[in-house]
Amino acid sequence: MHNFEFFNPTKVIFGKGTIAKLDRNVPADGKIMILYGGGSAQRNGTLDEVKKALPGRTLLEFGGIEPNPSFETLMQAVEIVRREQATFLIAVGGGSVIDGVKFVAAAAPYSGDPWGILQTYGKTVKEALPFGTVLTLPATGSEMNNGSVISRKEQHLKLFFQSKKVFPVFSILDPEKTYTLPKRQIANGIVDAFVHVMEQYLTIPVGARLQDRFAESILQTLIEVAPAAINSHDYSNRADFMWCATMALNGLIASGVPEDWATHMIGHEITALYGIDHARTLAIVMPSLLNERKDAKCKKLLQYAERVWKLTEGSDEQRMDAAVAKTREFFEELGLKTHLSDYDLGLEAVDAILANLQKSGMSKLGEDGKIDPVMCRRILEAAL
Amino acid sequence: MHNFEFFNPTKVIFGKGTIAKLDRNVPADGKIMILYGGGSAQRNGTLDEVKKALPGRTLLEFGGIEPNPSFETLMQAVEIVRREQATFLIAVGGGSVIDGVKFVAAAAPYSGDPWGILQTYGKTVKEALPFGTVLTLPATGSEMNNGSVISRKEQHLKLFFQSKKVFPVFSILDPEKTYTLPKRQIANGIVDAFVHVMEQYLTIPVGARLQDRFAESILQTLIEVAPAAINSHDYSNRADFMWCATMALNGLIASGVPEDWATHMIGHEITALYGIDHARTLAIVMPSLLNERKDAKCKKLLQYAERVWKLTEGSDEQRMDAAVAKTREFFEELGLKTHLSDYDLGLEAVDAILANLQKSGMSKLGEDGKIDPVMCRRILEAAL
Repeated sequence: MHNFEFFNPTKVIFGKGTIAKLDRNVPADGKIMILYGGGSAQRNGTLDEVKKALPGRTLLEFGGIEPNPSFETLMQAVEIVRREQATFLIAVGGGSVIDGVKFVAAAAPYSGDPWGILQTYGKTVKEALPFGTVLTLPATGSEMNNGSVISRKEQHLKLFFQSKKVFPVFSILDPEKTYTLPKRQIANGIVDAFVHVMEQYLTIPVGARLQDRFAESILQTLIEVAPAAINSHDYSNRADFMWCATMALNGLIASGVPEDWATHMIGHEITALYGIDHARTLAIVMPSLLNERKDAKCKKLLQYAERVWKLTEGSDEQRMDAAVAKTREFFEELGLKTHLSDYDLGLEAVDAILANLQKSGMSKLGEDGKIDPVMCRRILEAAL
Repeated sequence: MHNFEFFNPTKVIFGKGTIAKLDRNVPADGKIMILYGGGSAQRNGTLDEVKKALPGRTLLEFGGIEPNPSFETLMQAVEIVRREQATFLIAVGGGSVIDGVKFVAAAAPYSGDPWGILQTYGKTVKEALPFGTVLTLPATGSEMNNGSVISRKEQHLKLFFQSKKVFPVFSILDPEKTYTLPKRQIANGIVDAFVHVMEQYLTIPVGARLQDRFAESILQTLIEVAPAAINSHDYSNRADFMWCATMALNGLIASGVPEDWATHMIGHEITALYGIDHARTLAIVMPSLLNERKDAKCKKLLQYAERVWKLTEGSDEQRMDAAVAKTREFFEELGLKTHLSDYDLGLEAVDAILANLQKSGMSKLGEDGKIDPVMCRRILEAAL
């Protein structure tokens, strides 16, 4: 096991009817700004519920944070936060809204051009406004971590920052708030959480038996709850899914182990270029990447085959292939296509994705830095 | 899954050589008081290492915190903290020292008799001195939670308190610091952590698939690493064991599920009366309690049998019995005896333990409050 530090001060408030607990967790004074997305929080009543749970506060609102939140939109919010001197932010939405609010929280008191936050991966963040979240879409884990991914539309860039200053103070997770989500978003959320775990688990073994088992626990639970979570409003399944998505990316299973994240880096470029849903880009890249990386990931692939998919028959090669096939099948059964051609993308897209990766400085990806542009091309071509 | 809140702001600093990180994590000014136990931290050099890692600080020392730390001893530390106006505490030791420091941290600024902290289970704690820990004995999980158990020797009482004010600011976990521990303490630690998990896992099913799997992950890992962790200085095994013990009682696996804790409540009285090591009292009580509670715990016992011990043959009754037998065997193989008679205790001890439980107000124990004094007598008599 590698040395590690683990720190996560976000208070999770989980369960039915927990939006009512906002009153106890949001400061009574100051100006509170509520930020949300494209309008679903308004339509399904969550926004009203949030406002009702905050009696006596001075409330500001900012709507319209888009999926893959853009620097351009968020800078409008930053301007209002500065002008109105907001003191506490509340994100109401999924990972995009929460990521966006993290950026707004860090950008408002930032001296200089806030694009610098992303250019330095967050290293220049010295302070941030405090904020809480009300999660409506389980997927990214942003509600319990200090990372954020922001896009700059005009430049087709999607960049990441993190800072210990942007952990949410609290996050309210009410599984019933997921009932109004379209099936497509639930399916995307399951695959997103699944791939988050894989990025931290399916690398090189370093001992770390407990972290491995925790990761396998999340994968197994996601597989178990997936069909019912998508097709019904069963509370128990939604609750398990929601907690899995949070635990998939809150630092716990990453403690003391190598991490990959190549699937995400490549996927980000596909979204930046073609606007394909984040989770759908992961479903395209991951099976192909696992196939390409069978040598480097051999031991963990065999462990994954046995413990997660119960594959015990056949040679090492056969079990690894079967595990990758099972992974692809899982994504496809949830409705996420796993080939670029499913989105009418061909070889020209491979060139464009590679060019964008180069522009983002991503020339040595993976847990061992061995995914160079040549290997990356093989991965993408195999995903055609 | 039940509604829950999860909050744990302790920063864990894990790995080889991490005591050197004290300098970065302890305030540079003020008066720092280092508290430790019976002298092993002095003898094995850890205390010196801690002091060397804190250059330029004004350091105070308080040694002699005993296993099952006593109110009487700790009040001496409180007096020095108040007189010297210490501003930050560092616990160097295992669960007893850390529990003791939590009490000192809360008692120093407490108005009124600090015994009131324990009489109110911590509800009257309004503030506490900040403190960090350097863990030398993995077992209780105290390094990453806000609970503490304190004994009052003269009255043979062992009481519990918790408060969100007594989370350690940081905890340094260096597995190499466990190399000088006697085998007996490693074995005790493994059983203590194992039973912590069981108290939160082996109750009544409420869905909560991920919490169940996390709990099973810790149990399986403890079983896997136990022999090597006791018999060798293999770093990887010690590291896995140390992380298991921390994760066993940091609030994570308790989130959203019922909890038992009857084994602990009964065990505490055995320690208070007869001075038997904490973990050893758990090893006596738990197998007998599981046997008695087969009806109430049926579903979880069968899940435990299958997932942790891979017992799939025979009737429900047979698999439950086999799982309890496996648990007893595991404790015995680690050198922890599982009967009161192994400590020359007989029926008179049963009477004394029951009387003490009554004195502590513990008449309805277990996840369903159904362990009354009559059932408790059956559990203890079966453990003779």
